[in-house]
Amino acid sequence: MWLFLNDTYVEREQASISPFDRGFLFSDGVYEAIRYYPESGYFQTEAHMRRLQYGLDQLQIKGAETGRIETVIKDLLTKNDQTAAQALAYIQVTRGAAYPRQHFFPAASTPPTLFVTTNPFKPHTEEIQTGVRVLLEKDVRWMRCDIKTIALLPNVLSRQHAVEQNACETLWARDGFITEGTHTNFCAVKNGTLLTPPRSNLILSGITREVVLEICQKLNIPFQEASIKESEIPALDECMIIGTTTEITPVVKINNTTIKGGTPGEITKKLQKEFYSIIFK
Amino acid sequence: MWLFLNDTYVEREQASISPFDRGFLFSDGVYEAIRYYPESGYFQTEAHMRRLQYGLDQLQIKGAETGRIETVIKDLLTKNDQTAAQALAYIQVTRGAAYPRQHFFPAASTPPTLFVTTNPFKPHTEEIQTGVRVLLEKDVRWMRCDIKTIALLPNVLSRQHAVEQNACETLWARDGFITEGTHTNFCAVKNGTLLTPPRSNLILSGITREVVLEICQKLNIPFQEASIKESEIPALDECMIIGTTTEITPVVKINNTTIKGGTPGEITKKLQKEFYSIIFK
Repeated sequence: MWLFLNDTYVEREQASISPFDRGFLFSDGVYEAIRYYPESGYFQTEAHMRRLQYGLDQLQIKGAETGRIETVIKDLLTKNDQTAAQALAYIQVTRGAAYPRQHFFPAASTPPTLFVTTNPFKPHTEEIQTGVRVLLEKDVRWMRCDIKTIALLPNVLSRQHAVEQNACETLWARDGFITEGTHTNFCAVKNGTLLTPPRSNLILSGITREVVLEICQKLNIPFQEASIKESEIPALDECMIIGTTTEITPVVKINNTTIKGGTPGEITKKLQKEFYSIIFK
Repeated sequence: MWLFLNDTYVEREQASISPFDRGFLFSDGVYEAIRYYPESGYFQTEAHMRRLQYGLDQLQIKGAETGRIETVIKDLLTKNDQTAAQALAYIQVTRGAAYPRQHFFPAASTPPTLFVTTNPFKPHTEEIQTGVRVLLEKDVRWMRCDIKTIALLPNVLSRQHAVEQNACETLWARDGFITEGTHTNFCAVKNGTLLTPPRSNLILSGITREVVLEICQKLNIPFQEASIKESEIPALDECMIIGTTTEITPVVKINNTTIKGGTPGEITKKLQKEFYSIIFK
């Protein structure tokens, strides 16, 4: 498998970075994952590139060659012979390698590291059809969850809890309000209105989240960007986790609380149908 | 310069890790820094090793060859001809490299990455004698600051703020209480009593912090592990930042508030004197 690292296409087994890369020492970087569908190509590339740039701006990482990423992910797909099936491009930019190790920014001349891969991706067909169980845990993350950084240790730990408990994902709640999942945003339906936590420093502004809100608008499904209390869960009619890899996945159980009926809801199915009609034009 | 990486001594320029190392992708690892003094050798190695093991246990990283670290840091010092001057050993353990990238833990057979360096270290003599100015910012970190993880992005950003404002360090306050600095613990003196925030999930349990409390005990300096309010700053008689690289550094100004007199206080100087008498036996 070919990947792209610092200006060069290289085979995966040969790819190497310096242990003084600030991604490795300080989680000093950001990333994006973009879904590829053979029917329609990369999904929402521009939105992902905008969010990547937002993260770079927030961290003041300058000089990354982001302008070539679109070409790189297309080239990799071809080089890896991945154009015929679904795939996932992964893009990571760090503040580069600098010695000696010190917390503050290195010399401005330090080139950022650009790391890009494309990987086969198996759609989560069954989960999307039948729905999943998720855990709900306390959100212990930092207060800048709006930046898609590689400081993902809390996500690793909470996702691992899900695996250990045969759940699909872990959602978080902060101060009693559901924020999001380890790699998904959260939506619910109550009395016919789709609810999703508002954009803030407490959640990532998801690309799929934006698409879902656009679909609501198009299909005249009432929606509201509003906080959802943990204690409201038993009163919710439908729940979903949404994201690049998850698409629109119905949540039928949160911890041990079954969401009404325990099967995917009508609005969820409407959203899925429209979502796939965009992708599989 | 020689360093140690995954079972091998290697020259710094040749050292490389896989970009699929979970340290690089997820900040999935922990680290330690240990000070070396030619007069007395490595300082508090056992305490550092205990804390490293605590972090590994918390993250459930198993199988790291921590038993050889003491030998490795001694070997490196010799190989790098660094025994005659002060140095700083750096030790990082991550959950290892695994493909494909996925948040949850990789196969149990994945070997952790062990990365060790020894580096020349110039003592901060002037700062320690005359005192420093520090910033005070809102603590936006996650809620497990008791683990010395490589998820250091908030530390990077706050330390950079200090550099940009000609300050030595940035302290943080959460909910109005001072927690610690980006790479230091915080102590203050009020009415003859040394105060330092209590051990909790909100601060790192510093090795130098323990040493300072032991010195207080030995010298009959009253001390209390107690929360210190941000609003109390003008009433504090002395302030210090303490840590492996900082040792005991007087703080004479926090943001624009001068700490009583603007010079290192008497208790600070007593602690320094005893601290160096331990090191330079």
